[in-house]
Amino acid sequence: MRDINVGIVGLGNVGSGAVTILAENADEIAARLGFRLNLEAVCSRTALRRPMTAGMARAFVTEHWRDVVTRPGIDIVVELIGGTGVARQVVEGAIANGKSVVTANKELIALDGLNIWRRATERGVSLGLEASVCGGIPIHAVLREGICADRIETLFGILNGTSNYILTEIEKHGTPFNAVLAEAQKLGYAEADPAADIDGFDARSKLALLAAFAFGVRIDPLQIAVEGIRRIVPVDFRYAHQLGCTLRLLGSARREDDGLFVSVRPALVPLSTVLASVQGAYNGVWSRGAYGADTFYYGQGAGSLPTGVAVVSDLMRVARDLQTGNLPRVSPFGYATVTEAAPRDIGEQRREWYLRFRVVDRPGIIAALSAILAEHGISIDAVLQLPDEDWRSLPFVITTEETRESNLRAALARMSEFDFMAEPPLALAIERGV
Amino acid sequence: MRDINVGIVGLGNVGSGAVTILAENADEIAARLGFRLNLEAVCSRTALRRPMTAGMARAFVTEHWRDVVTRPGIDIVVELIGGTGVARQVVEGAIANGKSVVTANKELIALDGLNIWRRATERGVSLGLEASVCGGIPIHAVLREGICADRIETLFGILNGTSNYILTEIEKHGTPFNAVLAEAQKLGYAEADPAADIDGFDARSKLALLAAFAFGVRIDPLQIAVEGIRRIVPVDFRYAHQLGCTLRLLGSARREDDGLFVSVRPALVPLSTVLASVQGAYNGVWSRGAYGADTFYYGQGAGSLPTGVAVVSDLMRVARDLQTGNLPRVSPFGYATVTEAAPRDIGEQRREWYLRFRVVDRPGIIAALSAILAEHGISIDAVLQLPDEDWRSLPFVITTEETRESNLRAALARMSEFDFMAEPPLALAIERGV
Repeated sequence: MRDINVGIVGLGNVGSGAVTILAENADEIAARLGFRLNLEAVCSRTALRRPMTAGMARAFVTEHWRDVVTRPGIDIVVELIGGTGVARQVVEGAIANGKSVVTANKELIALDGLNIWRRATERGVSLGLEASVCGGIPIHAVLREGICADRIETLFGILNGTSNYILTEIEKHGTPFNAVLAEAQKLGYAEADPAADIDGFDARSKLALLAAFAFGVRIDPLQIAVEGIRRIVPVDFRYAHQLGCTLRLLGSARREDDGLFVSVRPALVPLSTVLASVQGAYNGVWSRGAYGADTFYYGQGAGSLPTGVAVVSDLMRVARDLQTGNLPRVSPFGYATVTEAAPRDIGEQRREWYLRFRVVDRPGIIAALSAILAEHGISIDAVLQLPDEDWRSLPFVITTEETRESNLRAALARMSEFDFMAEPPLALAIERGV
Repeated sequence: MRDINVGIVGLGNVGSGAVTILAENADEIAARLGFRLNLEAVCSRTALRRPMTAGMARAFVTEHWRDVVTRPGIDIVVELIGGTGVARQVVEGAIANGKSVVTANKELIALDGLNIWRRATERGVSLGLEASVCGGIPIHAVLREGICADRIETLFGILNGTSNYILTEIEKHGTPFNAVLAEAQKLGYAEADPAADIDGFDARSKLALLAAFAFGVRIDPLQIAVEGIRRIVPVDFRYAHQLGCTLRLLGSARREDDGLFVSVRPALVPLSTVLASVQGAYNGVWSRGAYGADTFYYGQGAGSLPTGVAVVSDLMRVARDLQTGNLPRVSPFGYATVTEAAPRDIGEQRREWYLRFRVVDRPGIIAALSAILAEHGISIDAVLQLPDEDWRSLPFVITTEETRESNLRAALARMSEFDFMAEPPLALAIERGV
């Protein structure tokens, strides 16, 4: 079999990782494939002004992406620029030139993946997306091929390493959110502007992509209910532990009556579950199928080398396809067709709830809150108050039995009007289904 | 694209699961593939004497496997008989007739997988093995393609659901081994002859197969060091917990200096790790690569439908390959060539150890044992004795610092000669590397 030639566009964090793996692990890769992957060309804006690494020694080096996508002999172009500007031109240019494409670009694929896939299919080339979600976990390979005979009913994901790091640090040390965030920024685990991570937007894009792999539908990320972790305080973990649970920022997708409920929100997860074992900057994806029961996948969510493994593994898959047949062999999403779908109204989803209140102490508060819950047909499961020296400033918690979210939201709106509320109540779903 | 026609030989537990999934989930499967999988023929020894299920309604039904492997129009034969007798004839017959093969047959593949693969390659057909190890976890897809760019250095697996069920029941309830085993047999979780499960032989075959996927070497299962769980008593869990650990029957493979250390033995695993979260009849595989860091995969180890998902997912992969190109597209083991390899002498492996002693109480015992350890250059880390009313019958534990296993075995042989030993010492490795 002939060598397969690769061109990489973008030499940032992930690109450098992929180049390292292609160079250092070349023999192992060739032993697996039975042929070699050659790094034929690399492009970055500063390619000619930076030191060449060993892996690039035999490659054509350029600062112009068009040199790569038009270069004869290149079989697969790897787009690792990110964003939706030049990256789109690279991907579309490569396809137009009859080259297969591997990309780690979550934004571009969440925005316009179906059109890009259509172009690739028309041109008879492959599109690989393995690194676009959960770099360190081969979740695409699992959903696209590993358990593709199953009918997935529920998928939960801890999809953002930064927010999981922050939550598990709060849990371990009882440190307040802002202090943990500042520490994470100092260590480089969180960006100077942390909104994408801690407000759930990054996880939301990833969940939208996973929904395509798990259910064959394309969901607009903007239609996914999202809530970040800024309001989580150490005492929430103390209450959660009392309930046998912990807190995680959870991407959730459930198929019910042929519609999907999707959300990204902090939620209570039983401590006895594998999802609760996801600590620090790791990611985890749990799914339950109609046939295969529950499975769970775990690894680093990001990082130069872990994401590099995803990129190069994807390259190897596309290279195998190139050697043996007509492309594309398999839809990049695992479904022959992916249809646009609006998620179901999250208000119709039924859940048990954790409600945490911080109030100005006075008599009759529990009575007032219970009355509102009763008015909305919501049953109380328990009222919890931790023992504490300074009990007046300590929040308390009410857990409810299962109820429609719209009912709960209506009750919360009424509660927020009470003048004894020191802040709006915090409502977190309890995910017992894991 | 044309339909792909499937013949299933063997309608036991897994075969029934696969038929159910092919029938009930046919539309979802077709939506993924873009074409249909037809169940064209089924064979079992009692096929004509049992009620037809809905999924078999349109299939040719026979009691003779040759009818299936020679039947024109069948593209893929699924061998689900098990064992190495007729099953081998089915697999080899199908290949000889130019049909691709999917099999869940761990014994046959562990025994003779390389020869069967060679025949398939010569005949230009595909061989699918996904269901042969850890039915409920797509670990083959993960190792063969998902993380194939990595260089795996360590792999740990909880590979036998029965023994994990027994261990975690002992842990949860403090019930003695024999009582838990009897209960497991009553519930159908353990066979009447439980040796294959509880003495580690089943896990050993699986580890041998996983080594081919993870490292590209074929290891004779008989060369893998094995030890079962019969000697584990409830108090071992109490001591393990004191050490921040739990106990699991662990398949372990490590690449060191281009040789592999492989073993299947009960071992201490830190409670803080994801492997410790594997409870009941579940399986888990944890691996660390040189590039992708650590990943973990979890699901049911067996069962009609979970293993059926593995079989049908494998069918879908082979069917996709058949539609688009020349077979075989990828080595069934993920390596272009798999070489026979002898594992490294396990005696050279270095580990910390947990040594549990049951003795006839008298003065000077610790002094005598310490002296032997010192003679063999083994440093003691801690001596543990649980508080207990009946302290005289309670075993005690010595943990050691890292030492070569051969040193430890020599010391244990000397210790066994002491007349105060009520039973030979139990030695378990402490696996801190997870």
